[in-house]
Amino acid sequence: MDAKVYECVKEVFETNTPFSRNLGIKVLQDESLNPYLRLERQDHLIGNYIQDILHGGVISSILDIIGAIVAVDGVISRMKYEQKAEIMKKFEKLGTIDMRVDYLRPGRGTYFIATGEAMRTGNKVSVVRTKLKNEENTLIAAGTGTYMVG
Amino acid sequence: MDAKVYECVKEVFETNTPFSRNLGIKVLQDESLNPYLRLERQDHLIGNYIQDILHGGVISSILDIIGAIVAVDGVISRMKYEQKAEIMKKFEKLGTIDMRVDYLRPGRGTYFIATGEAMRTGNKVSVVRTKLKNEENTLIAAGTGTYMVG
Amino acid sequence: MDAKVYECVKEVFETNTPFSRNLGIKVLQDESLNPYLRLERQDHLIGNYIQDILHGGVISSILDIIGAIVAVDGVISRMKYEQKAEIMKKFEKLGTIDMRVDYLRPGRGTYFIATGEAMRTGNKVSVVRTKLKNEENTLIAAGTGTYMVG
Amino acid sequence: MDAKVYECVKEVFETNTPFSRNLGIKVLQDESLNPYLRLERQDHLIGNYIQDILHGGVISSILDIIGAIVAVDGVISRMKYEQKAEIMKKFEKLGTIDMRVDYLRPGRGTYFIATGEAMRTGNKVSVVRTKLKNEENTLIAAGTGTYMVG
Repeated sequence: MDAKVYECVKEVFETNTPFSRNLGIKVLQDESLNPYLRLERQDHLIGNYIQDILHGGVISSILDIIGAIVAVDGVISRMKYEQKAEIMKKFEKLGTIDMRVDYLRPGRGTYFIATGEAMRTGNKVSVVRTKLKNEENTLIAAGTGTYMVG
Repeated sequence: MDAKVYECVKEVFETNTPFSRNLGIKVLQDESLNPYLRLERQDHLIGNYIQDILHGGVISSILDIIGAIVAVDGVISRMKYEQKAEIMKKFEKLGTIDMRVDYLRPGRGTYFIATGEAMRTGNKVSVVRTKLKNEENTLIAAGTGTYMVG
Repeated sequence: MDAKVYECVKEVFETNTPFSRNLGIKVLQDESLNPYLRLERQDHLIGNYIQDILHGGVISSILDIIGAIVAVDGVISRMKYEQKAEIMKKFEKLGTIDMRVDYLRPGRGTYFIATGEAMRTGNKVSVVRTKLKNEENTLIAAGTGTYMVG
Repeated sequence: MDAKVYECVKEVFETNTPFSRNLGIKVLQDESLNPYLRLERQDHLIGNYIQDILHGGVISSILDIIGAIVAVDGVISRMKYEQKAEIMKKFEKLGTIDMRVDYLRPGRGTYFIATGEAMRTGNKVSVVRTKLKNEENTLIAAGTGTYMVG
């Protein structure tokens, strides 16, 4: 992810979105500069105290967010943006059209990592496959989202 | 929904689930005793301050929860339970297998109502279609969830 | 469905599409002029001879087709078309973006009826919920499709 | 895939299923013995003659089939079967619960390859992600299916 885009993504998805702050997600990048999200286990995100697992809604939320980031990054990286204002305009057009989430294993862990891979980057619509793993690399959930990007 | 089941549902989905309390969902019943959820617009659930709309993750969360309630109610209502402990046991087996959410219109409103309709009630797996509307009856999102029930 | 649109729909989805002819689907309208599809049980559509049920692929195919018809009808009915050529142009832009199918009960029957209901009719994207029933009104499958319409 | 399982898979999914014969799918294995499907472009599978592309229903059908094969293979490979009859019994319990298909690019090509990867292999339910590519390795569609396996 380009440094300017990363700055915008952090601003939009981490700082300026109230529900993202509620969840406490952090937008990070790996060595190849691919974006990913990190979420700490927190009491207010639990779905079941006895099992001590994340609520399904938290899982679908974080998969939706990483999918949106990967979708908008794909679209922006195909263009030549110079100004932050131009990049931010792309974010305004971004929206989730639909999403599927598969809850594969209990959301147990001390922290969680969400990643995404673009299946298609279009002018209007992009499709992203996502995954949520815990700190032991256990695959907890998988998702597919369709995003309006233009 | 049987009165005893309703009591259990409120206990499990409204009181005992930390993330449900975070969202502030209320479990209610209509005149036909069908369960539904009510959610007030609250600052910490917003996805976009400028547009003042619910975050997509809040929408998928509430659709997942009403789907689970309709699924478990369908299974319990086919049996003859006398004891609360027996009913509660059914809840322990409940889990979302997968879900699709269609984000149809911006999640704008002062409060929101989520409803569900069972498409199939099985011994192992149930399927529920869900809807989220605002106080003006605008359809904001539609979902379909597959639930493990036995 | 407007008479001119119905004519186009039959031409495109029943006559001119090789795979539709393979399936043998018929496009019909109910008393309210809502489109629906009829499919006869035929040997070459069977998924399991012992159970004598439709193949899942046949079910997803027919749900995809009725969804597309409802989507394009919704878009056309909001405009004022006079010429068949104008209507046909709308069909060229039509495409399925994604679809979910829930296989609820075995596809057993002598004939099958597929119906659809638009959840959202947009300028670019429409969403349609679909159902497949047999001649005894048993709900066999339910679907949700997202369609590119403009 | 174990040789005995492969034999059963070919028998069930290629030879004994009328709709599979209609489509003309072939069950094959790669060097790692992972199963895949091959489908030739054929006139009766076309959705649009002008564009010369596969019908969406053909795409969802072949993704459903490879998903089912990967799901049942995953379950069987965890057990120690000796007899063909035991293996065949597992196939009888197999069924698609639900599926999502993303139509990413036009289904154009001279032949098509469908592959699948298990996300979760359960005692009751398995989840498989699938892909359809053409002979030039273009990704045409992606799917996710939930399968009853026990």
